[in-house]
This record gives sequence, structure tokens and C-alpha cells, in this order.
Amino acid sequence: MKITPLVRQAAEILDTPFLALDLNYVENNYKSLKNSINNVDVYYAVKANSHTKILSLLKDLGSSFDAASKGEIDKLLSLGVDPNNISFGNTIKKESDIKYAWENGITMFAVDSEMEVEKIARNAPGAKVYGRISTSSNDADWPLSDKFGTDVDHVISILEYAHRKGLSAYGVSFHVGSQSYNKYKWKEAILNASEVFEKLALKGIHLKLLNLGGGMPVQHVKPIPEVKEIGEVINESIKEYLYWVDGLKVITEPGRSMVGNAGIMASRVLLRSRKGTKTWVYLDVGVFHGLMETIENFRYEVVVDRKENHETMEMTLAGPSCDSVDTIYDEVELPVDVGYNDVVYFMNTGAYTIEYASPHFNGITPPEVFTIEELQEAVDKKLAIMAQQ
Amino acid sequence: MKITPLVRQAAEILDTPFLALDLNYVENNYKSLKNSINNVDVYYAVKANSHTKILSLLKDLGSSFDAASKGEIDKLLSLGVDPNNISFGNTIKKESDIKYAWENGITMFAVDSEMEVEKIARNAPGAKVYGRISTSSNDADWPLSDKFGTDVDHVISILEYAHRKGLSAYGVSFHVGSQSYNKYKWKEAILNASEVFEKLALKGIHLKLLNLGGGMPVQHVKPIPEVKEIGEVINESIKEYLYWVDGLKVITEPGRSMVGNAGIMASRVLLRSRKGTKTWVYLDVGVFHGLMETIENFRYEVVVDRKENHETMEMTLAGPSCDSVDTIYDEVELPVDVGYNDVVYFMNTGAYTIEYASPHFNGITPPEVFTIEELQEAVDKKLAIMAQQ
Repeated sequence: MKITPLVRQAAEILDTPFLALDLNYVENNYKSLKNSINNVDVYYAVKANSHTKILSLLKDLGSSFDAASKGEIDKLLSLGVDPNNISFGNTIKKESDIKYAWENGITMFAVDSEMEVEKIARNAPGAKVYGRISTSSNDADWPLSDKFGTDVDHVISILEYAHRKGLSAYGVSFHVGSQSYNKYKWKEAILNASEVFEKLALKGIHLKLLNLGGGMPVQHVKPIPEVKEIGEVINESIKEYLYWVDGLKVITEPGRSMVGNAGIMASRVLLRSRKGTKTWVYLDVGVFHGLMETIENFRYEVVVDRKENHETMEMTLAGPSCDSVDTIYDEVELPVDVGYNDVVYFMNTGAYTIEYASPHFNGITPPEVFTIEELQEAVDKKLAIMAQQ
Repeated sequence: MKITPLVRQAAEILDTPFLALDLNYVENNYKSLKNSINNVDVYYAVKANSHTKILSLLKDLGSSFDAASKGEIDKLLSLGVDPNNISFGNTIKKESDIKYAWENGITMFAVDSEMEVEKIARNAPGAKVYGRISTSSNDADWPLSDKFGTDVDHVISILEYAHRKGLSAYGVSFHVGSQSYNKYKWKEAILNASEVFEKLALKGIHLKLLNLGGGMPVQHVKPIPEVKEIGEVINESIKEYLYWVDGLKVITEPGRSMVGNAGIMASRVLLRSRKGTKTWVYLDVGVFHGLMETIENFRYEVVVDRKENHETMEMTLAGPSCDSVDTIYDEVELPVDVGYNDVVYFMNTGAYTIEYASPHFNGITPPEVFTIEELQEAVDKKLAIMAQQ
């Protein structure tokens, strides 16, 4: 999202840090994804940003949801989301949460291990399960490692096991890694998924669900493939590898790509100082108050207001807490004249920012969150107070 | 703190995860530190654990406090702490927080840059400032980098600048790095500090305060020097290098060493699975719900209840969220037979755990915190409910 005149005015007169959210971006992202992948059902990954207004908007647009826990399920149900439109996509579930989900009408669960199958069989007899394939994620910004998913042969044997346990072996999921740059990763993953479909069909187990996971990138500092291009690869791959599946249901679980570009974080410079030969710039927002992903050197575009075109030099950018790990970027180009009280924006910070924030680390509160409408109200209110003084 | 019968019973019948705190350890830590360093005033670093009962206990014992922000100051004042017993020790302060602190009677502020001196001079005219020296922290578990402090010559010129700006150039602080293993780090730092005292005395600026910072270690998986030993080094170094300072005030800012061993985190195994050749064990607590320090491979002792003496093998230990970074230890020795629902304890987790926790990441709530008395009540209540069923 852009630095609009409203955002600029807000940063000047309101307390920082704050996170502004423009829900129009979310709506456009949703529609663009729906238009790019044939017959896809979108299951928004709530964990990316669980703001109530984002969830409500997506519900009204017809979106389904991917939930990670009972907490997220409760939030969705309280907003009137149909449990048939919720998938319990975490492969590591509390047994009591599985029971709770099943009792509340949720019927679709992710698995990548025998033990998880057993937990679901005990608490949600007859539920639909999909097995998660692991993918190498070398072309992604936020790593996936081996924590989730397993190899194709293992997924096949897990789904067979689920079938024997009385569950409905329903489909296959994968995740190419969050913020993935290589559109052919999806082709490779769909090929792998089709192997699971085929081998199980030969054993009389007919899968229906292809879950494309998330991973579509958001524009930050590197060029990215467009959703349309990725969609074409996906559509062609499905046609090539899964044309023979009757009544195939295709879903995707976007998080970052639904909300990433819908946010902008506004902060201020608290201090600039010299340490040996290095220049340090300290902001009123940091790693533990919304910029957690920078610990893995996730790169947001950083804009110093009104100094966008100034000459730059390498500096270190850090947060306000008494913690050395609260260092945003060890090396980042900033305007040579960046100084006290300058407004600094982190662009496209709608996903995976505020969700990580501690409410009181070092006694410092995280950024206040405003939709554009709320931001306008806050600005108007502040202007009225200033006029009285 | 030990796995007491109460903790074990609580882990069996209450929901996990939880963090149990035994305040007797805090009291002992406080007394032992007071006894180990001659005439020291303890300024507890609130950021390590801001639990109200810890703050109240320390206040009653006569402790002073090191605050990082307005939020922490407010909490201390609301508990009736005398503002004369609060130091505003963050070197990166909001200007409005400086003003607030000064107006509320706080008179002591940390600095490590000219700009911070200017902010204090504008908002707290005449306040006492101490300059922070940077130290190399190669012998510490949680890194300090160059975010805080600066070299001796720079500290001298900053304190001169403060003096010219009408502030009281009051002293020197340093921090040897959190969880520091090398007691001679304190000697080196006191020698450096004495250089600042001397050079400024020659210019007619007479410092009074030696702030020893924090950094005293807590027992985890490596042997540590005892507080008594570190205290001896400190006492000797002060005698050697600062004997000539009239009315020297010595303070220390312990965080981890006051509360680290006063806590134990109880969690449960949600899942055990095989990924290729690796075994993964997933718990109901993780990096983003209290074990943040493990991202820098901070090593807690991990105990699987009732399997303490079983044969072990290398496994990967991860948290419950849909985030790969939520992996506690890539490689850790665990009992070969660790299994579903086993209780797993993280020992000595009273410091820097719950403070980092996100309240709703992935919709998962952080560990509930109980003092021992509260834990007993919760157990009794649960037993009464169980008896009725």
C-alpha cells in the first residue's frame, strides 16, 4: 500500500508506531487470486493477520478459512463463519482442539504423521484428512525447513493408515515456502501430489482435494512473479497431472499474499548515534513489537519520509528495547541525513507483523492498528483537539 | 527451581503450558547478591520478568529498579515504588517518556550518545546521567552486540557534553552481556570505567556512580561461576581501581540472575513424528509463546518427566505454531521413548520467557503464570472438580 496523504498526516500528528490497513487491497488480492486459478476455493490463513475486519471482509467475499488452533476457530465461529468453510490446517494439533473443532462442525484436518491420524481418528471419527507433502523451499524468503510435511511415500502410507482408521483420506497439500519467488515450484509440487493421487487410486482410495497451500509472494525489495503467472502454471499443471480426477476440489491457503500489501507501518527515529565507524538509527518500533520476520533478514522496503531521494549510506537500524536481538537490519541503506524524529515507513507490512508482537516487552506497547477509516477518524479527532489548544 | 511434587501434580492435572514461579528463589537471589558485593544497591531490571508479585517482593526487600520505558515506570509507580529508587536505564528513550519520568520524580538516566544527552537536557534539566561503556561479550549466551554503549573516549566526551548542557555527569555503566561466564569480564569493565572517572576528575567533573549492569549467569546446561566469586572479583576491582573516589555509589542491574532460577515451564508433547531420518517432537509451547531466547540457541535444561534416566538420542524439538522458525532446538538429546502427552519441563525459565510471548500468535495463548501459592490453589480447585465427577 502507498504512503497516502492521510497516512503521512497521521504519522505527523498521531503517536507512533502504528500499522495502517487498507482493506481495499485485501479485496483486490482475493479477487485477483480467484480469477487466476480455475475453480479455486480460497482458505485464508488466519495466522497472517487475524484482524476482525479482515476476517469479516473475506467472509463476506465468500472466502473460506485455514485455522491453526482452537483460538482461531473460536474467532471465526464468533464472526459467523460456517464451520464447513474452515479447515484445521495445523499438522500439530492439541487433541482437545481436534475434539472441539469436530463437535463444532469442522470436518477437514491436515496430517503429516501417523500419530496425528490417531488423534483425529479418536476425536473426529470419519473426518476428512489431507496429507502434507514437504517441499524444498530454497526460493522462499521465510523458511519452512522440515517442520511440516513429509515425503511422498510417507504421505501415501499415512493416508492409507487414515483410511484403515475409518477416516476419509481426502487429499494432498503442500506449501512451497512463504514468499516464494519461483513459480515452477508449484508445478513440481503438483506433480508430486499427483503421484499420491495415482498410487492411492490404484489401491481403491480416491482422493478429491488438492490443497495448494500458500506462499505467493508480496512485493518487497526483489521483483516477484505475478499471481496471474503463478496461476497459469498451476492451471496448466493441474490439467497435465490431475485431469483424470473426478470432481477435483482445488483450494489454496494464502496468508501473506492476501494481506501483506494492505499494511504500512509508521514509526519514528528516537535516536541516531555513532558506534565506532558505524551509524546506528533507533526507531520506536522493532523486532519484538511487529518486525519479527526481520530476525531471518526478511527485507521490507524502508522509506524515510520526505527524504526518499536523498543520497544514502549504510547504517544499522534497531528497535527501542534493551535487547540486542532487537536489531532490525545490521546493514541497510538509509538517507545520509536521516535524523531525530524523522518518520520511517515499513512498506507492505500487513502480514506476519502485529501477530508476533509482545504486548508488553520492555513495557513498550506494540503499534496501534487502524483501518483507513479508523485512521481518518483518529486524525480528525486529533485535529479537533489541536484546534482547541 | 526444582520439579517439586506440586509442580508434577499440576502438570498432570492442569492445562499446559504453564510457568510456575517460586518467589523464595527471588528473595534468596536478592539477598545473596546484596551479600556478595560490598555496599551495593540492587536495581532490578524489570524487563526480565515484570510480574507484579516479583516487583512487590523486591520493593519490600528494599530493592531499587531499572526501567526501560514509561510502561515499566508506570507499573513501578502504581506499586508504590519511590521514584528515587528508579533508574531509567534504556539508552534509547522516547522524549515524551523522559519528560514523564522527570515530572514523576525520576532523576537518573542512562546515555550513550550526544543526541540522548540533548533529549534529556531539554526534558529533565539538571538530571543525573551515567554513560554506558560497551564491552565485548564473547563469553555470554545472549549477545549484546554494539547496540548499547560506546567506547571509553566517547563516553568521556558524552559526559563532558552532558555537564556543559547543565546535566549532572553522574557515573558510568557497562554490561558484560547477559548470562556471562567469565568473571574477569567485570574486572576489565571496572578498569575501563575507572578510566572515565579519572579523566573526568582531571577536568573537574567528579563522578559518583559505578553501575555494574547485569549479566550474572543462571545455571542451565553449562557450569557457571557463583555470584560470590563474581562478587569477590568486583569488590577487589573496585578497591584496586576506584578506592580514591569519594562517596562512590555502586549499583547493579540484575535481571536474569534475580528471577531465572525462580521459574519452571511445564509443557506437553503434542506429536512425535519421523521426517526422513530425523525424529521431531512437538510441544504445546514454543519460540513465540515463551521460549524466544532459543532462537539464539540459548540452552535450557529440558527434562522429560519420569524418563530422566532413560537412554537418549538426538531429536528436533519444536513448538505448536504453523511457523518453521518456531523450532526450539534443531538438535537436542531426548529420551528415546519420549512420546505423546509426556510432560516436558524447561528448567530455570523465570527470566526473559513470558515477557516475549505473543498473546495470540496462531491463536495460541501463552503459558499461564502461577506463583507456587496460586499453583496450589489451582490444583486444589481442579481436584475438587475431579472429585465431583
